[in-house]
Amino acid sequence: MPNSPRVRGFQWAGIRCGVKARGPDLALLVSDRPARVAGVFTRSTVPGAPVVVTRRRVRRGAARAVVANAGVANVAMGEPGLRAAEAMTRRVGRALDLPTGQVLVASTGVIGEPLPMDRLLPGIDRAARGLAPDRIGRAARAIMTTDTVAKVASKPVSLGARRARIAGIAKGSGMIEPRMATMLAFVATDASVAAPVLRGLWREVAEDTFNRVSVDGETSTSDIALVLANGAAGGTEIRSANGARARALGKGLHAVATDLSRALARDGEGATRLVTVEVRGGRTTAEAERAARRIANSMLVKTAIFGRDPNWGRILQAVGAGRVRLDLARTAVRLCGVPVFRDGASAGPAARRRAGQRLGRPEITVEVDLAAGPGRARVWTCDLSYDYVRINADYTT
Amino acid sequence: MPNSPRVRGFQWAGIRCGVKARGPDLALLVSDRPARVAGVFTRSTVPGAPVVVTRRRVRRGAARAVVANAGVANVAMGEPGLRAAEAMTRRVGRALDLPTGQVLVASTGVIGEPLPMDRLLPGIDRAARGLAPDRIGRAARAIMTTDTVAKVASKPVSLGARRARIAGIAKGSGMIEPRMATMLAFVATDASVAAPVLRGLWREVAEDTFNRVSVDGETSTSDIALVLANGAAGGTEIRSANGARARALGKGLHAVATDLSRALARDGEGATRLVTVEVRGGRTTAEAERAARRIANSMLVKTAIFGRDPNWGRILQAVGAGRVRLDLARTAVRLCGVPVFRDGASAGPAARRRAGQRLGRPEITVEVDLAAGPGRARVWTCDLSYDYVRINADYTT
Repeated sequence: MPNSPRVRGFQWAGIRCGVKARGPDLALLVSDRPARVAGVFTRSTVPGAPVVVTRRRVRRGAARAVVANAGVANVAMGEPGLRAAEAMTRRVGRALDLPTGQVLVASTGVIGEPLPMDRLLPGIDRAARGLAPDRIGRAARAIMTTDTVAKVASKPVSLGARRARIAGIAKGSGMIEPRMATMLAFVATDASVAAPVLRGLWREVAEDTFNRVSVDGETSTSDIALVLANGAAGGTEIRSANGARARALGKGLHAVATDLSRALARDGEGATRLVTVEVRGGRTTAEAERAARRIANSMLVKTAIFGRDPNWGRILQAVGAGRVRLDLARTAVRLCGVPVFRDGASAGPAARRRAGQRLGRPEITVEVDLAAGPGRARVWTCDLSYDYVRINADYTT
Repeated sequence: MPNSPRVRGFQWAGIRCGVKARGPDLALLVSDRPARVAGVFTRSTVPGAPVVVTRRRVRRGAARAVVANAGVANVAMGEPGLRAAEAMTRRVGRALDLPTGQVLVASTGVIGEPLPMDRLLPGIDRAARGLAPDRIGRAARAIMTTDTVAKVASKPVSLGARRARIAGIAKGSGMIEPRMATMLAFVATDASVAAPVLRGLWREVAEDTFNRVSVDGETSTSDIALVLANGAAGGTEIRSANGARARALGKGLHAVATDLSRALARDGEGATRLVTVEVRGGRTTAEAERAARRIANSMLVKTAIFGRDPNWGRILQAVGAGRVRLDLARTAVRLCGVPVFRDGASAGPAARRRAGQRLGRPEITVEVDLAAGPGRARVWTCDLSYDYVRINADYTT
């Protein structure tokens, strides 16, 4: 994964303005021309002010910039919160001579505290002066909260005769105070694509990637995943959602979003393992997804993996709790490739031992075959360790 | 709470037969005459064999005995599992000269291992010889798994001129291997009540008590809550569900089930606090319940309570994730009686400090007023501590 992949026509900045106690906390992404934009947002019924502002602007389909801060989430602040989010975008517009309506905003951090605008607004001016095509890594660091690594992913794609690039950043679960898990992702591409096509691709990609990460089953008030496509790669605009170029772009976006999503799960609060849950054989896709989410969110399964316990009983229990019809006699469970349950029975102590050894690896797979239909689903998660409790139980007052 | 409340016509036993590595593991409850019975059961789609057998027999409405073991859950064992559960009830029938069809059975413990019938069946004979009216405490100990205290509750009730008694036992979350959280509750009363009335009362009571306990949001394969009413208190049978006597009996059952449910939450795996979540002002009861369950199952809320962090942001985030319409400007949050959020804003640092101090108490209340309607709901839970992870992550292989 290159540290500073470039995408034509885009510049990034990441600086410290002093919202967080330490480290960079303000990121800026700017396109040199209006970009098509698509977004997916938290389904929380108490979305943060930046979500409200950005969602409205994304609907218009064009964007020039994204500004994001870490440290204060600007949630539950009422009318002043909305005004603060809008003021951030206005400042970007003024600094870079862009229409405010094409500036998007995101925040992650503590709920119920006002943004320190006296530090944020001058910070935006400095970020605007610090823009450069190769500063994606700095931007990635500037949106981190309790993330332990910066998350950058990129991918070149061939769109007919043109070669386009996709690069993106994300931050995951963990915040300072009150340590709200928030997912932010910003992806830039120089592909030339019509807004409706981009929206369709992004919805599909997000559903299969960002929406399939679960660290602790919590829904943040501030989740935002954006893609900006500025067409700087040239070529005629992709207008058909079904053509080869749309498929190629979708595949590239999917690859970048997958890399970022896996990085989010791997870096979940307190995580020691990346866990991929794959369910197949559901009567429907929805049923397979319910089963996979139940496994991924089961505290008993997650503590078992932390403890290297090849505990298929907990996996079946989690599936059984999730409105999934289970025929145990046909169900199979594999842990890290080792069959531990099949034909309605435990595969025996030797398999159990082998699976237990493999559970020490940094990447774990949990595969369940319900043998009842064509439904498949995959979810990424992590284990549940002492550190999750430590990170989230520390005094904040 | 008396340790050996007696209910006329009922005897209890609790002995060690050797299913668990240590301690008593076999309980027996017997009525000297056929009792009306009602039950609520796990909604898991992979119920254990004892659930299948007992559910079928409870439908007939009459029972003489309940036999229950801890240590092995008899789940995911196919046809042999069903035969083992039935064999347990047959042995009780033979030892006490009862119709097998009126003997109920429950098991809690490891999934996917066979019951050690060579120890269980002779154990049943010994338990039958050890029955006594005052051994409810022994029975309560014999169904414990990782429970740290035996759970007994009782209540006298006046039914017209007659005085009836209600006494019950329960076990909660925590098991040996694989530490499946399972809820068992057996309640005996000498009230004289028709089966349909008892069923109606029990369903209502269980919905408001046992079904409102959540330690970790997991659904066991083996949950069973039974009530037996043998009429030994005399008087004419309660046949109307709406009369004063039915209401009095329902109130008594509710009190016993509440005591047991609170004991279950207080003794949740790793718990250091009993947490009562009260939501009011939902547009509907269902909405209030969704909000209360979201709070009770939120890992971020539970770790905050463990850390004594008066973190109303996490509480609102949990509610917002649960398909609940939230108007923050009207929503209020109280922690241990201290208003920490109201009129759309934090109540300030002094309230926060006071709430933080009270969060050190062994019993915590989280109150949320959605101010949108008449819906109310209450759920009991506990905090999430390092010990939950330790108990559930320990090697079992």
